Amino acid sequence: MSDESSLGTVYLVGSGPGDPDLLTVKAARLIESADVVLHDKLPGPEILGEIPEAKREDVGKRAGGEWTPQEYTNRRLVELAREGNSVVRLKGGDPFVFGRGGEEAEHLAADGIPFEVVPGVTSAIAGPAVVGIPVTHRDYASSVSFVTGHEDPTKDESAVDWDALAATGGTIVVLMGVGKLPGYTAALRDAGLDGDTPVALVERATWPEMRVATGTLDSIVEVRDEAGIEPPAITVIGDVAATRSRVAAFLQNELGDDPERGDDT
Amino acid sequence: MSDESSLGTVYLVGSGPGDPDLLTVKAARLIESADVVLHDKLPGPEILGEIPEAKREDVGKRAGGEWTPQEYTNRRLVELAREGNSVVRLKGGDPFVFGRGGEEAEHLAADGIPFEVVPGVTSAIAGPAVVGIPVTHRDYASSVSFVTGHEDPTKDESAVDWDALAATGGTIVVLMGVGKLPGYTAALRDAGLDGDTPVALVERATWPEMRVATGTLDSIVEVRDEAGIEPPAITVIGDVAATRSRVAAFLQNELGDDPERGDDT
Ligand SMILES: C[S@@+](CC[C@H](N)C(=O)[O-])C[C@H]1O[C@@H](n2cnc3c(N)ncnc32)[C@H](O)[C@@H]1O
Ligand SMILES: C[S@@+](CC[C@H](N)C(=O)[O-])C[C@H]1O[C@@H](n2cnc3c(N)ncnc32)[C@H](O)[C@@H]1O
Repeated sequence: MSDESSLGTVYLVGSGPGDPDLLTVKAARLIESADVVLHDKLPGPEILGEIPEAKREDVGKRAGGEWTPQEYTNRRLVELAREGNSVVRLKGGDPFVFGRGGEEAEHLAADGIPFEVVPGVTSAIAGPAVVGIPVTHRDYASSVSFVTGHEDPTKDESAVDWDALAATGGTIVVLMGVGKLPGYTAALRDAGLDGDTPVALVERATWPEMRVATGTLDSIVEVRDEAGIEPPAITVIGDVAATRSRVAAFLQNELGDDPERGDDT
Repeated sequence: MSDESSLGTVYLVGSGPGDPDLLTVKAARLIESADVVLHDKLPGPEILGEIPEAKREDVGKRAGGEWTPQEYTNRRLVELAREGNSVVRLKGGDPFVFGRGGEEAEHLAADGIPFEVVPGVTSAIAGPAVVGIPVTHRDYASSVSFVTGHEDPTKDESAVDWDALAATGGTIVVLMGVGKLPGYTAALRDAGLDGDTPVALVERATWPEMRVATGTLDSIVEVRDEAGIEPPAITVIGDVAATRSRVAAFLQNELGDDPERGDDT
């Protein structure tokens, strides 16, 4: 499998939101052909379950050791490539959307490792989409912003400017935003967004146990608590979130084997 | 193939940016099994070239008739579904990112047609990614905004708030933004963005004739003109655009058969 005489290539691959059918053709082929697949938990049980144990390496849980998980991953990618392996670094959604893919690419280039980026379907778009919410809409959303709800604590407090995001007038999609929902919904109201602005939470989008909960800027924290929504989930804020109520009756995405699947809670 | 006794389903399917390998597994399967595929030009020659002529219907060029192209598409989707066909509505990138997919979904639901959304890899993320540009980065982009550079002319002039987008401090990705590049780059400078802010244009991302051109807010209009960049292209504005220069030497995506492919012009 591995050939020590030449460098292997590292593929930074997006897995999509979790449904194996939403892997790209290229991602599916690379997972099949790779010598090693480095991953964390985000690709989800369905996709990870199809990868033979022998070539899977979970780099998500490593913490408290000599290196941070990210430093460990960076080193491990270089090490495996130097041993001549074809390496898939599998990341949930798209590798370049809040996935540290950019850092990994820079690290590989700095160490002279050839790499390829294989974009994926991001949960930030697909999460809303599969429950009937388009992130843009000609009539009421000329822009959409993706933002992290869980800021890097080492950065200046103001790195996410909720005032500016509110002022765009477009859709706001928050990733990693379950825990800090009270903070940023309050910030958006303070910034002038109406308390009636529609909001939806989509937990484990496209996973068999997907759940959806809908409300408004004013009500969504209570909705989250009653439904017990947990990460990973997408928060989508804006008029587009109301589209769901107009289309859900004819939307086939949520009709899985599990009668609970897609239940509005 | 078609069965007049029951309604067919309409699949709103994203084709990804153009490389057939970036179709999702599900999109590839649905294109194969559909009775009819309605499309415009955006999925690109490689993907469209693989669909048998007999089941392709180009709804992109229809204009000047009784209906607008969008009205025609809406009606045609309903008509084909009522005839019992399995219909793929194939859209470039993701169907719900500036693709009128939301309008089509509402139209189908209003007419009682069952439909399914099949998210795709959007050019807004993949275009930058395949030339080495991550749209978010932990160190210098906590948000990314996708915006149309070609506003609906029937809407209020201020529907895109370039001041607010500049104030987010995040990456700005402009779709349909080749022609109006001078206008919005000036607006972003007026809003306080530095003239040295890195900018990249990615034309026909992942197509065999992909091209890239890089500059700054100050220089990019001249760069566009000298390179002759044409639609479809993605404009990516922000510090992340400089990542390309640090990683391009080891990035394998652009090494196609065509030596021109991916040339920085
Ligand atoms: C570190 S970010 C990575 C995002 C990923 N690169 C993407 O493009 O989807 C992790 C966050 O992505 C979101 N996420 C990823 N997969 C998801 C899914 N299947 N359903 C809902 N949210 C998801 C959640 O907000 C989660 O906290
Ligand atoms: C009507 S919008 C549709 C966007 C599409 N739904 C998506 O998610 O990529 C059309 C614009 O998408 C962008 N676009 C689509 N495919 C592209 C590609 N392969 N390369 C560069 N830009 C592309 C261009 O900005 C183009 O003007």
